[in-house]
Amino acid sequence: KPYSKTTPFQGNKPDKLTHLHFYFHDIISGDKPTTIRVAEAPGTNSSATVFGAVLIVDAPVTEGPELSSKEVGRAQGLYASTDMKTFGFTMVFNFVFTEGEFNGSTAALYGRNPILLEERELPIIGGTGDFRFARGYALPKTYKVVNIDAVVEYNVFIWH
Amino acid sequence: KPYSKTTPFQGNKPDKLTHLHFYFHDIISGDKPTTIRVAEAPGTNSSATVFGAVLIVDAPVTEGPELSSKEVGRAQGLYASTDMKTFGFTMVFNFVFTEGEFNGSTAALYGRNPILLEERELPIIGGTGDFRFARGYALPKTYKVVNIDAVVEYNVFIWH
Repeated sequence: KPYSKTTPFQGNKPDKLTHLHFYFHDIISGDKPTTIRVAEAPGTNSSATVFGAVLIVDAPVTEGPELSSKEVGRAQGLYASTDMKTFGFTMVFNFVFTEGEFNGSTAALYGRNPILLEERELPIIGGTGDFRFARGYALPKTYKVVNIDAVVEYNVFIWH
Repeated sequence: KPYSKTTPFQGNKPDKLTHLHFYFHDIISGDKPTTIRVAEAPGTNSSATVFGAVLIVDAPVTEGPELSSKEVGRAQGLYASTDMKTFGFTMVFNFVFTEGEFNGSTAALYGRNPILLEERELPIIGGTGDFRFARGYALPKTYKVVNIDAVVEYNVFIWH
């Protein structure tokens, strides 16, 4: 059986825009962190922007801003501090939805997140399930920062 | 000369669906591993899901399930264990095709792989050569596991 076969595309082309609104809890401190550092360079800790730090994340995504509010999914992936002058993180994440209409679907986030800016934008570059063939954009906005932990409000728009 | 120039898009828009079927050999043990660990957190080895492990892979992609079967390309990239509760790997890969119709083209895989599930889906977020402007989805299915080494059957559908 040849390992490849090409036919005319008959799948459904993206024609809907879904707006998702949720909160992402990035907890580095304490005994139940969502985020842990897995790699760094010798100079990372003396860098003003922790340049070179690579962190892995499995964080709750909730409906409301409180950690106790209803969990609608997880944000799983990694981010790295990749800007020498400001906090600009390269983010490689998947939003894994576990509630509601998009339970079982994921959205792939991939981009640069200048976290000190009020409004930021990162690309949604794909997805699975209902978000197959998807593209879109995510608008993260810092909702609350306590020391090094943050709650980030996400408005995500997915063309699928 | 300005570094940018914009003109109406006249490239060919994705209109074909190519189905690729192959086997990916993820070998961690032994003296000829395809996969090596490059980073981890202090708690990774005591985590039930090896949370925080980052591995780099250059693995053969073959037509049949045996490692000795015809190689049609390589799977190169990295995956990280990014789920605290189950084995959910964030995968950042490129399939580099070296045989057949798509020799010289690559397909970019990027998503979350819950490897213990029978059926999984990851997005194909782009590609090069024949797969330029491509999008699609990959359906990995574990074919065989021997200790920590695995053969994974991939059915990949690319809209290009």
